[in-house]
Amino acid sequence: MLMPEANKKAEHYVGVDLGGTKIYAGVFRPSLELLGTARLSTKAERAPGEVINRIARAVTDAIDECDLSIDRIKAVGVGAPGAVDAQTGSVIFAPNLKWKNIPLKKELEERLGVPVFIENDANIQMIGIYECELESKPRHVVGIFIGTGIGGAIIINREMYSGINHAAGEIGHMVIKVGGPKCGCGNNGCFEALASRTAIFREIQAAVKGGEKTVLTEMLGKDLEDLRSRHIRKALRQGDELVQRVMDRAAEYTGIAVANLMNLLNPEVVVLGGGLIEALGELVVPDIVKTARAHALRGTAEGIQIQASVLGDRAGILGGAVIARRGTK
Amino acid sequence: MLMPEANKKAEHYVGVDLGGTKIYAGVFRPSLELLGTARLSTKAERAPGEVINRIARAVTDAIDECDLSIDRIKAVGVGAPGAVDAQTGSVIFAPNLKWKNIPLKKELEERLGVPVFIENDANIQMIGIYECELESKPRHVVGIFIGTGIGGAIIINREMYSGINHAAGEIGHMVIKVGGPKCGCGNNGCFEALASRTAIFREIQAAVKGGEKTVLTEMLGKDLEDLRSRHIRKALRQGDELVQRVMDRAAEYTGIAVANLMNLLNPEVVVLGGGLIEALGELVVPDIVKTARAHALRGTAEGIQIQASVLGDRAGILGGAVIARRGTK
Repeated sequence: MLMPEANKKAEHYVGVDLGGTKIYAGVFRPSLELLGTARLSTKAERAPGEVINRIARAVTDAIDECDLSIDRIKAVGVGAPGAVDAQTGSVIFAPNLKWKNIPLKKELEERLGVPVFIENDANIQMIGIYECELESKPRHVVGIFIGTGIGGAIIINREMYSGINHAAGEIGHMVIKVGGPKCGCGNNGCFEALASRTAIFREIQAAVKGGEKTVLTEMLGKDLEDLRSRHIRKALRQGDELVQRVMDRAAEYTGIAVANLMNLLNPEVVVLGGGLIEALGELVVPDIVKTARAHALRGTAEGIQIQASVLGDRAGILGGAVIARRGTK
Repeated sequence: MLMPEANKKAEHYVGVDLGGTKIYAGVFRPSLELLGTARLSTKAERAPGEVINRIARAVTDAIDECDLSIDRIKAVGVGAPGAVDAQTGSVIFAPNLKWKNIPLKKELEERLGVPVFIENDANIQMIGIYECELESKPRHVVGIFIGTGIGGAIIINREMYSGINHAAGEIGHMVIKVGGPKCGCGNNGCFEALASRTAIFREIQAAVKGGEKTVLTEMLGKDLEDLRSRHIRKALRQGDELVQRVMDRAAEYTGIAVANLMNLLNPEVVVLGGGLIEALGELVVPDIVKTARAHALRGTAEGIQIQASVLGDRAGILGGAVIARRGTK
């Protein structure tokens, strides 16, 4: 006999990854097993209240996808881009969304009627990876998340480190090439402007415009409009020279950024994650590791592990479920 | 009536700054008032045991300078270059001295007969500054020490952060200009290779060789053999164009490095110290601060103080006295 719905406990968690272009929500069992997901575009150009409505909709869509209802959900955890004050539940500043001081926790709680917890998006990926992937629970960890942009997160003494303005870990905006290409932040030569998916695509497109040959134009046409990581993957597998050269350079920049962080923070583990690493992992990670080890100071690198996360874009929603579970324990 | 010597307490502390070229020792009262100092060249080319004899001699010279004897000393604190394990008292690795796994604490205690404590040299400067200069006791601090090389130290949650291999804080070896000038560590474009005193002197000397004019050649002759920071200071005050240009660039690199650290660690305070800052402070610090604030991410820099230490090369010996006092409390 099925238990009557009303007697079932609110025991599940929803994790949400709020990005500049999409909202990704996942429903998890208390054991953190993923039951189902939903995706919506963010529509960041709309007012914050509209975007928050969409987050609420992504949450209810994901719940419905699992044939559940909101009364089975104990709490929701959201990762938001930018500076996030986890204590007050506010997004202090999120350039991608053009948000400033948005009380996201309160607004979402009003819409959903369940407790909501928020964190920075890179931090929440790090929390997901730390909880579910790093079983040795290393003491100090640096996470680098490479996708459209490059995010970072730092764990010190087994706790998330967020600095005094909740803005620490901006690894993507570490300048590693003074005078290098312009970054979205206004500076030149940021790691993100050299090795993010955006930077890689831009460089390939510029080379094609300059007359260089690549198998990508056969797949996608001359303007490479629909270029995705999977095409890069295919081109690498087919031995495409242009794509190989651009990826080699991006891997070198990434390796140097990793070495900088090894020299600065001397962590036990450096984790590489994000969409680009998920898509191209085994094709680029060995080169990144090689460059990082070659550039780290002698004596510094010993015992430091550099590893790719296998969680891909599930890291964010998983981290959301983890903070939701922690917050209601 | 004078108290008989034998009844006087061992209450003073000696702090030692062990560098690649010189050993600097200072005797401090329990209140950390400096009583007297001594300096010796390091003679790093000699065997470690010989160098340790010289450290012991610098300590006894400084004590004698104050008309005291070793029985009035409660403990000694030493800052050593490289990776230092403060717990075991070993210098794990010090490239400048060509030392590897040297039990410095034990060796010095055998020679001096008093307790000895050791720390990394940049960390010990940071400890001196934190104890005696940063009265608000900020939660997270980054220290950057610019002299012959560039050292760094990180305080997280009001404690020295040293990573898993006691090698954290190597700010000087953060690559900020991929493909830039060669660094002593083997990499290219390290902060140290761009903005240390060594890098600045090298650039001025190269420009003079290339035929550029500067008042420095009038002061020192064409090869600029005896170039010191005070000459740079004079040249800047006289409006020397070459020196101004080189210093502007060094200040810009330093500002970018500071911004990287603000973006990564979002500390409450960034302290600039070391010989170059001591000699040229008010002539370069405003430019460094300006560049750092312009390059830090919007929202990150708010509330972060950037300040120059006024302790100069006393920071190291003072930090030594602080760890000696802490160790015997």
